Amino acid sequence: MKDLFDHPIDRRGTGSAKWDLMDKLFGVPLDGGLAMWTADSDYPTAPCVLDAVRGQIDLGIFGYFSDVGLYTGAVQWWMKERHGWHIEQDWIVTTHGLGNGVAMCLDVYTQPGDSVVIFSPVYHEFAKKIRRADRVVTECPLKREGDRYELDLEDAQRRLTGNETMLIWCSPQNPSGRVWTAEELRAVAAFAARNGMVLLSDEVHHDLVYPGETFVPMAVAAPEVMDRLVTLTAASKTFNLAGMRVGSLTISDPAMRAAMQARLEALDSKPNSLGLMMTAAAYSPEGAVWVDAQVAHLNGNRAVFDAAVNAIPGLRSMPLQATYLAWVDFSGTGMIFDEFNARVRDIAKIAASPGPDFGAGGESFLRFNLAAPRATIEAAGARLKRAFADLQ
Amino acid sequence: MKDLFDHPIDRRGTGSAKWDLMDKLFGVPLDGGLAMWTADSDYPTAPCVLDAVRGQIDLGIFGYFSDVGLYTGAVQWWMKERHGWHIEQDWIVTTHGLGNGVAMCLDVYTQPGDSVVIFSPVYHEFAKKIRRADRVVTECPLKREGDRYELDLEDAQRRLTGNETMLIWCSPQNPSGRVWTAEELRAVAAFAARNGMVLLSDEVHHDLVYPGETFVPMAVAAPEVMDRLVTLTAASKTFNLAGMRVGSLTISDPAMRAAMQARLEALDSKPNSLGLMMTAAAYSPEGAVWVDAQVAHLNGNRAVFDAAVNAIPGLRSMPLQATYLAWVDFSGTGMIFDEFNARVRDIAKIAASPGPDFGAGGESFLRFNLAAPRATIEAAGARLKRAFADLQ
Ligand SMILES: Cc1ncc(COP(=O)(O)O)c(C=O)c1O
Ligand SMILES: Cc1ncc(COP(=O)(O)O)c(C=O)c1O
Repeated sequence: MKDLFDHPIDRRGTGSAKWDLMDKLFGVPLDGGLAMWTADSDYPTAPCVLDAVRGQIDLGIFGYFSDVGLYTGAVQWWMKERHGWHIEQDWIVTTHGLGNGVAMCLDVYTQPGDSVVIFSPVYHEFAKKIRRADRVVTECPLKREGDRYELDLEDAQRRLTGNETMLIWCSPQNPSGRVWTAEELRAVAAFAARNGMVLLSDEVHHDLVYPGETFVPMAVAAPEVMDRLVTLTAASKTFNLAGMRVGSLTISDPAMRAAMQARLEALDSKPNSLGLMMTAAAYSPEGAVWVDAQVAHLNGNRAVFDAAVNAIPGLRSMPLQATYLAWVDFSGTGMIFDEFNARVRDIAKIAASPGPDFGAGGESFLRFNLAAPRATIEAAGARLKRAFADLQ
Repeated sequence: MKDLFDHPIDRRGTGSAKWDLMDKLFGVPLDGGLAMWTADSDYPTAPCVLDAVRGQIDLGIFGYFSDVGLYTGAVQWWMKERHGWHIEQDWIVTTHGLGNGVAMCLDVYTQPGDSVVIFSPVYHEFAKKIRRADRVVTECPLKREGDRYELDLEDAQRRLTGNETMLIWCSPQNPSGRVWTAEELRAVAAFAARNGMVLLSDEVHHDLVYPGETFVPMAVAAPEVMDRLVTLTAASKTFNLAGMRVGSLTISDPAMRAAMQARLEALDSKPNSLGLMMTAAAYSPEGAVWVDAQVAHLNGNRAVFDAAVNAIPGLRSMPLQATYLAWVDFSGTGMIFDEFNARVRDIAKIAASPGPDFGAGGESFLRFNLAAPRATIEAAGARLKRAFADLQ
């Protein structure tokens, strides 16, 4: 299956945000630059997904779609098969991807002025969405312990203002690649319950988990919080379908689900047919085999990347338990953000996600997207080595 | 090009809402029934659209999409080329189809409890969306004059409560197929301005206009109301892409546009990449040639349908100036709705849209979707003849 992930594809000029906006947003030239920021992949989706699209071309008609369980059935199957999580099909509420899913939850389950808890550093869009919705961020830092982040719920409890109505949790964690244990998840669930918060568990990275690690869905770890829990999942990261804008909120609580459905219906917010069909095709036995091959490829990528990065004095790549997002600490260089970032941008010509965007704790970091052919990862390692050659 | 529109395609079991929900919603069996209700087509989209999808399959990647003017450029070109309407690309705000577009306008430009004017009979979803948003419908009837509807703005003025903040206009008109003159459009615009209302002009059916008729965009007829105007357009009806959920709000007023963009951004409501690319491919010279062929096909369909229907004593199909939606008056039969509807459903086995759903004035009507191969239209005519054989 090697060629599935290692075949070089030039995405420049294809409308790829990661590539075509690299110059504008990062000042890294399209010609000679490497795009390693936003979280999509530079290799194709699974063949079974492409076959589903081919089937629609043969039909030729893209009219009003009635999902008679095709999509929801596939989601249900995948969660059981891959994550040991039983869900009912009618718990699934579909949104236009998970950014939209998070925003809709803020809209439906909180009020303007409410505070929302996040544990930083974390996916930068959480804080942005909270603020865009005129809600307030209560930022609780994760505790850095050597090569990983740990929860500090006592500290978090002290930071609450009493105004918090929601907690947005990221599992596996973006940007650190941390896989949380069932015990940790139960502690987070209890924290949410104790403080009367709705709990969003964003599990979009759940399929890309490395050998030896076990992902546990929040709903499996802490079924006692099902009455306040919304789990967010999508095939978008796993199958490189982010542009199709399909994601799911799984909501077992009937009142919470009804409130979300009513709001989506009032906005006539319905997912597109092809995105549903592609997701349904992805969540299949063929899709599962392809994901296993992808994880093996990514496992190789992270080994190559970490070896190159960790060989540079002052740089340290956090060992990933999941996700294709490498979180690299530059603090050992003694440089401030602007200095190491300029080297990565101007000498290595790599567009990477700035750590400070991920909130407190991200100041000395850059995040690198490893979902690419192996050759790209090797090139990135060599470029970084060159950019920091004077330290070696 | 005949075969483009006359090749029979069995949509049953393909996730087509029109077909697969026909039994559940109308009690018309999938086996032997004819689906002539919701507004999509039973023939394929244009070859240039399918080619665009093929190109994406070859790339294989469906990641984050940056529309660097591809979609907006094509929309701009189409409006100028086909409708003589100059728009700036940055006036275009994209929504998940036009149902979502209407709902977003209600959300952004009106408050709960506000009243919204519609002219009935009209596309049933307008009233439903107004009510779902907790707004109030101010229903102003169109005046039936022989074989067409006319505006009665004096009557409309008398019906206003003073609480109206928006008017939703349908042009060309669904369900009657009426094409409004520039003079009529100016009168509607003046009515909206005089009463301080935001004016939504839903022009989704603007491409399917029959020989001899000229469609005029509201923005062209009445540029003096650009500061309160939102025009809704999409390739969904013209190119049979409703399932892809892409539509545009064209908003030239900067403050109105900024308000809409801020709301969409807060909801992280972004269209899917493939839908944008399909629309961009549709709005092209090749697409225009295909649309002309489609209109010729539909022109034949309406002639066949009207001849068959008008030969049945008591039935009268309103002459269409635009749209593939035939509006058939059964009042000449002397039957109440339930009686003629039951004959169409149980004897003709046709699922047609019930006139009463379209509001006041629709009580004696059914709406039939003619976007199908000629053979389907002939079959429908024969079935209706049989269902009302006792009148002949
Ligand atoms: C944790 C997490 N949630 C949500 C998203 C965005 O999801 P979508 O593309 O469906 O809006 C991302 C993308 O990187 C993510 O990492
Ligand atoms: C006048 C009018 N507006 C809007 C729509 C729906 O548009 P969409 O499918 O994009 O939600 C229709 C569909 O029949 C229509 O006739």
